[in-house]
Amino acid sequence: MKKVRLGLIGFGNVGQGLAQILREHGAEYAQAFGLEFRIVGIADARLGCVVQPQGWAAGQLLDHVAHTGTLKGLPGEQPGWDALALIRECNADVIVELSYTDLQTGEPATTHIAEALSRAKHVVTTNKGPVALHYDRLAALAQTNGVRLGVEGTVMSGTPVLRLGRELLAPAGIFGVEGILNGTTNFILTRMETGAPYLEALAEAQSLGYAEADPTGDVEGFDAAGKVVILARLVLGAALNMADVDRQGITRLTPADIEAARAAGERWKLIGALVVSAGQVKASVRPTRLPLANPLAGVGGATNAILFHTHLLGDVTLIGPGAGRLETGTAVIEDLIAIFH
Amino acid sequence: MKKVRLGLIGFGNVGQGLAQILREHGAEYAQAFGLEFRIVGIADARLGCVVQPQGWAAGQLLDHVAHTGTLKGLPGEQPGWDALALIRECNADVIVELSYTDLQTGEPATTHIAEALSRAKHVVTTNKGPVALHYDRLAALAQTNGVRLGVEGTVMSGTPVLRLGRELLAPAGIFGVEGILNGTTNFILTRMETGAPYLEALAEAQSLGYAEADPTGDVEGFDAAGKVVILARLVLGAALNMADVDRQGITRLTPADIEAARAAGERWKLIGALVVSAGQVKASVRPTRLPLANPLAGVGGATNAILFHTHLLGDVTLIGPGAGRLETGTAVIEDLIAIFH
Repeated sequence: MKKVRLGLIGFGNVGQGLAQILREHGAEYAQAFGLEFRIVGIADARLGCVVQPQGWAAGQLLDHVAHTGTLKGLPGEQPGWDALALIRECNADVIVELSYTDLQTGEPATTHIAEALSRAKHVVTTNKGPVALHYDRLAALAQTNGVRLGVEGTVMSGTPVLRLGRELLAPAGIFGVEGILNGTTNFILTRMETGAPYLEALAEAQSLGYAEADPTGDVEGFDAAGKVVILARLVLGAALNMADVDRQGITRLTPADIEAARAAGERWKLIGALVVSAGQVKASVRPTRLPLANPLAGVGGATNAILFHTHLLGDVTLIGPGAGRLETGTAVIEDLIAIFH
Repeated sequence: MKKVRLGLIGFGNVGQGLAQILREHGAEYAQAFGLEFRIVGIADARLGCVVQPQGWAAGQLLDHVAHTGTLKGLPGEQPGWDALALIRECNADVIVELSYTDLQTGEPATTHIAEALSRAKHVVTTNKGPVALHYDRLAALAQTNGVRLGVEGTVMSGTPVLRLGRELLAPAGIFGVEGILNGTTNFILTRMETGAPYLEALAEAQSLGYAEADPTGDVEGFDAAGKVVILARLVLGAALNMADVDRQGITRLTPADIEAARAAGERWKLIGALVVSAGQVKASVRPTRLPLANPLAGVGGATNAILFHTHLLGDVTLIGPGAGRLETGTAVIEDLIAIFH
């Protein structure tokens, strides 16, 4: 049995989801993969910082936070420590970076990841910012230090679309990608098809927790654009920037647009696309009318999907969840198994 | 650059498809994976047997067969050799078993595979019979001899569904599988939805080469049942036999059945299913009415698809080709890369 010690940056939804997975399925992973995952440190900007070289039982962490609303008071409390202190001082084999996503700067997550890689700790992250903005630099840093950088959860949460595209479909020759990469906008579009105008559908998405109070990142296509950049880099090897994505959101779609598509036997979807043409990769995010025969047309609600165009297999489509605490926590497990198994 | 020497049993559609892939993409695989694949021997029951320790250029093989209709006359011709002689005598690192599928006995392919594994040669096969009927014995033989047995192409051709289910989705906990596993029957059902009665749709499938002159294996669900057994073994670890599959074909579906489903907002699909319940795995193949919201309902024509039910990710669906010379040849490449990269 190999012990894998985890240091978590961030203990919100995904961090607690990961702890829940370890509590409920840790014994199965030990049996199936010979890996025992132990959380040995957590730094959360709101909840505090704790370190325990032997690790806690995941259930102990969850119970404490559920009852007290904080990490403070746990054995191993480190008042005054921040994420960088945790990275430098704790005995984790891998830093799991789960702090909030910033697609303008990628900070503070990028600094956390770089610090961990520089200290020869593996990193797993589900945080889009650092990967969309700084992947090449971080991947080089990982290689220099002989460690791995796992990023499966940055696109479609635990639905293993990066590994599918990067590894399994590589021999088939991918020359294009189309995806429903943002569940919030897909939920809104699906609701608009059942008659809700845009603002009403948005309000419903907000009340269900799919959309944030400021929905700009989702509805203007920034979130999808970040994922398109990540797909370009990891699946097609193309070093695009956010500014290279021809981006348009869904805010101007009207009930009349929705109805016109329906009348033509089509559906609006916010499609993130990559097209390889004459050695160049063109990237876009824009509302697109899909014929119902397109496998993406039937993907409703908050579900995500990606269609890969390949030379040898034709079209291959993967449909699955794009968000969620357990779903994104699962992505962390997938990366950990890929690194340590 | 690592040289990988291939011995092919069977040089029909898939074997020639594999040669075509190597001719057109071999240089890319060398660059991307550091692997140079060389065909060093072929035994085909109809075309003859040839051996060339240095290997031929794939294009030379294809041109010769295209012009002469046989392997005879190529340098390295071995009159009188059969597949077993090739396995014993040629210098291949891996035997690629592509002879015809027999789901009653798994022969002669099972004997070929066992012979190769016993001689410590890796085996890659796209042949369902040996895997559906004798996987456990063959996998044990591979392990004993320190070699690998690649079977990705036995379900959904090069669409990497076995690797997705067995490796990528393992941490998510698969507890059920539903699949459109036979393209011929899905083509027939799709045509019946546009008004063709069963026999007319079948005749069309035959004229397009989807269905054989005796279509029993497809339309009575034997082919799908074989794939269900393979999925049970590889994805769920359940050792089922063909007889354990509750099997029903599509031959009794009438235009009235099709119309009744349509009126209810549903579609008939021939669904191969595995359900884990109380530690038991139940397997079935039967025509099933799916609501249009099911991701499998929109999968038309000869395309295949599998939906995995998982504990942590909910439903994850993979849609892609289920047959074809290049598509199945791609599965061989995927297995070769997994073994040698």
